[in-house]
Amino acid sequence: MATRSKLAFALRRARISSTTPTKCFRPSPQFRHQSTASTDDVKKPTSSPKTIAFTSETYPDLKRNSKFAQISGDHVEFFKNLLGKEGAVIDGVTRDATDDLEPFNGDWMRKYRGHTKLVLKPGSTKEVSKILKYCNDNMLAVVPQGGNSGLVGGSVPVFDEIVINMSRMNAIRSFDDVSGALVADAGCILEVVDNFLGEKGHIFPLDLGAKGSCHIGGNVATNAGGLRLLRYGSLHGNVLGIEAVLPDGTIVDDLSKLRKNNTGYDLKQLFVGAEGTIGIITGVSILCPQRSKAINVAFFGLSSYEKVQKAFQEAKGQLSEILSAFELMDSRSQNLVHRVTKKKRPLEGEHPFYCLIETSGSNSEHDNEKLEKFLEHVMEAEIVEDGVVAQDETQVRSLWGWREGIPECLGHWGGVYKYDLSIPISELYDLVEETREKIGKAGLMGDDDKYPVVDVVGYGHMGDSNLHLNVAVRRYDKKVEKALEPFVYEWIAKRNGSISAEHGLGLAKKNYIGYSRSDTMIGLMKQIKNLYDPVGILGSYLQSFR
Amino acid sequence: MATRSKLAFALRRARISSTTPTKCFRPSPQFRHQSTASTDDVKKPTSSPKTIAFTSETYPDLKRNSKFAQISGDHVEFFKNLLGKEGAVIDGVTRDATDDLEPFNGDWMRKYRGHTKLVLKPGSTKEVSKILKYCNDNMLAVVPQGGNSGLVGGSVPVFDEIVINMSRMNAIRSFDDVSGALVADAGCILEVVDNFLGEKGHIFPLDLGAKGSCHIGGNVATNAGGLRLLRYGSLHGNVLGIEAVLPDGTIVDDLSKLRKNNTGYDLKQLFVGAEGTIGIITGVSILCPQRSKAINVAFFGLSSYEKVQKAFQEAKGQLSEILSAFELMDSRSQNLVHRVTKKKRPLEGEHPFYCLIETSGSNSEHDNEKLEKFLEHVMEAEIVEDGVVAQDETQVRSLWGWREGIPECLGHWGGVYKYDLSIPISELYDLVEETREKIGKAGLMGDDDKYPVVDVVGYGHMGDSNLHLNVAVRRYDKKVEKALEPFVYEWIAKRNGSISAEHGLGLAKKNYIGYSRSDTMIGLMKQIKNLYDPVGILGSYLQSFR
Repeated sequence: MATRSKLAFALRRARISSTTPTKCFRPSPQFRHQSTASTDDVKKPTSSPKTIAFTSETYPDLKRNSKFAQISGDHVEFFKNLLGKEGAVIDGVTRDATDDLEPFNGDWMRKYRGHTKLVLKPGSTKEVSKILKYCNDNMLAVVPQGGNSGLVGGSVPVFDEIVINMSRMNAIRSFDDVSGALVADAGCILEVVDNFLGEKGHIFPLDLGAKGSCHIGGNVATNAGGLRLLRYGSLHGNVLGIEAVLPDGTIVDDLSKLRKNNTGYDLKQLFVGAEGTIGIITGVSILCPQRSKAINVAFFGLSSYEKVQKAFQEAKGQLSEILSAFELMDSRSQNLVHRVTKKKRPLEGEHPFYCLIETSGSNSEHDNEKLEKFLEHVMEAEIVEDGVVAQDETQVRSLWGWREGIPECLGHWGGVYKYDLSIPISELYDLVEETREKIGKAGLMGDDDKYPVVDVVGYGHMGDSNLHLNVAVRRYDKKVEKALEPFVYEWIAKRNGSISAEHGLGLAKKNYIGYSRSDTMIGLMKQIKNLYDPVGILGSYLQSFR
Repeated sequence: MATRSKLAFALRRARISSTTPTKCFRPSPQFRHQSTASTDDVKKPTSSPKTIAFTSETYPDLKRNSKFAQISGDHVEFFKNLLGKEGAVIDGVTRDATDDLEPFNGDWMRKYRGHTKLVLKPGSTKEVSKILKYCNDNMLAVVPQGGNSGLVGGSVPVFDEIVINMSRMNAIRSFDDVSGALVADAGCILEVVDNFLGEKGHIFPLDLGAKGSCHIGGNVATNAGGLRLLRYGSLHGNVLGIEAVLPDGTIVDDLSKLRKNNTGYDLKQLFVGAEGTIGIITGVSILCPQRSKAINVAFFGLSSYEKVQKAFQEAKGQLSEILSAFELMDSRSQNLVHRVTKKKRPLEGEHPFYCLIETSGSNSEHDNEKLEKFLEHVMEAEIVEDGVVAQDETQVRSLWGWREGIPECLGHWGGVYKYDLSIPISELYDLVEETREKIGKAGLMGDDDKYPVVDVVGYGHMGDSNLHLNVAVRRYDKKVEKALEPFVYEWIAKRNGSISAEHGLGLAKKNYIGYSRSDTMIGLMKQIKNLYDPVGILGSYLQSFR
């Protein structure tokens, strides 16, 4: 527990905010969209894509379904005639194109690698329609691919599926700055769209670490959660309309710009989070909120998970409508970031837990006053041990770096087993401790190279009851995998949690859906899959509900 | 345009707020949930339900489908054995129960009246399952019924469909005051739930005029919009989980309490807004926000619709995160309310348009300051002509009464043709003017009883681009109907609007879906209907996509 003198010191530091000019609390609206400084010097992976094992080898149970046709020169000819434009077809069927195909075969985590020989880059919804109809008629399996920034192997092929990459469909179609309705192609990059909106005084209602490469179509297809969900809610609430193509080529023209439209079933919702397995999203209409003029960020150290929960409740109550993020980080996640980046820590001394709180509002003085009152309360009530408030844009970026930099820093030693879980908030951190204990007892974790595991850490979107349980490893190891699975999934199932809060199922979790969904629900999902994709060409090796 | 002296006067009145104690701006959290004073003395309809025409007569094209069985004594016996409890079965098959059945046969607008002879009130999800399975197996058509407060005839039978009334399933199952997740039976009354949440410092993320009678299951089944949508978003974003029963008796157990769960298709979304045509919702899990400590209400007079749009943009920009309602009312709607209630108007003089702005926040001083700054700006810039701010709870209720009292007051002369439309905001009010002109030119509108139409008025949720076009009539008249339809629907279709923003299709709009949806979309809806309800027992005379 914090001593009196410590408290006074901490409070003084936190209070600095009120004595500095308020302009410090008006950072540029764009600041979150530049790369975070703290990850600049992270060691980048040096392994060439070609050294990554093929998914077909690491998942020997997956067999190519012989009902799918082998891609022939005739097929390629059809697609070249259809797409015309140079670069719209990467043809590894009639010539060697291994190097050109490699980026589309592998994922950024270096966990999955497919054998595709053909990448198609359609330039319009009609082209997507013709491609899919042809594939459906000719029994050609396909994988839709957005920015390929997924975490569950859902956007890369396993065998020779044709990759339909959406990057050429990248136009912003319209924006209405009264209603905030944006209509854009699925292949628009999130950051590009957010910058466009920034110039109009708006933001995209979603933000995540991969913003520089992920596509908004992929975001919608995977129902991405990210950093703004606490404030702006899920994509199910914000997406106004969708344009998508079904496997038989049908164009689903549900691209409404209306906030309200109760005329029949809201079918667009089925495509939000379906991970491209019932259709390919080609366009998105979405409600974009106004950009906040004032953004404040505070960073705390806390002595226990109980205190974290108290701080969260206080933040919800006191910061209420301006609270835009409440992020949790355990000490071990911060220690690893520190080991990699060598940067000066935001707080002096170490604390078992850290929280990052962000507020976004329209009046910096009001927000500042609310935040200060909140700070005084949580310090005086000894809920937090220490805390700082960002004084300028650089500090805001730096504090966010300690949270946003975690995923990349954890990969520093070789790899990461990543679990993205929804757990009732009171038990959320128990899983990290139990997992660490289990890995430790199994003799798999230690400081030198003979141990595969570097550390077991927990962080995540506390505001959404969303824990990222990460196991940083020096190498992927079946023994570690066995210690983790099905242990983690069983733990979640017992608490009616979700084995995939925001990352989706993909290939990684396709066999584990039963831990979060009943047989009845899985049966109903199969019905939908069969309704929309009776041949099964879309994401054919991904979903368990085929 | 406002003169200088008028402006100064108006500003002074608006500014009163800053000189009164701020406690005036902290009304009881419950105030919106008491009946609005302005509608207390509205003349109630005197016609007995039995004088209302049967839907089968007013819609002669509707024919009872002979594939459905006639209800027999054996069927009734099955249901009595199943439900047991006295009052759970209203049996008009084996005895005369006309009076007891009447409230379930008719809607509150006195527009629709069915011929049911059997009302079932299940007490559990299992009972709903057994009822539906039996009806499905025995070709018995059914209509699910919540609080029966719908506006499109969706919750009453047309012929002898069995009414499944959900009022006995009215338990709150659980509430988590950290996450805000509420789980409750579908038959809970919205106001009861909101009062329960009020005691825990939370609110239901939906509020509407019928709160005293509507069921939360019905709200979700119809994707109700209402007064809080601008702030808290649609039910598609707030509903965390659903328990529903399919026509074959399958229980859809998707009652998650998690804010994030990306494990497969989000099937619950199909039930939100399906109007009970693919399954009956029996339980709802929903995210409930914290109740705001401070609520302010302002009421303006404006000279033109252009000024209304300007005021809306300014409110969005300046009030931002605390703006919780922006309601539009034209002068004619306010004149009619005044004629019925005889109450003193909020503003001196008449204005072509009125707006009601509500803010909800956690700090009354901050909110007050923001509102005052906004008021000063819109008055100095001559965007508004006059304005008042509520000084206490009574005034808040009274100002809201001028908006919430409209629907009931319009019914004073006999009936109302109601259109609930989504229209791009710039053209929203044009429809009211064009409709009024059309009705006037047709010689249907006037001050004495020989004219069927009293007036054509427009009001609605400006913040959601949602217009309520209402035609107050002395009697329902085919000539008026012909002047209105398909004119209104064609007008909407040309502007890619929605012919039903928040009320749903029901019986009233079942034939007009084509004005807001393409043939492809309607075809896909038919697929879903056939998938979940292949026999077609649910809401069998409602949806066009059967």
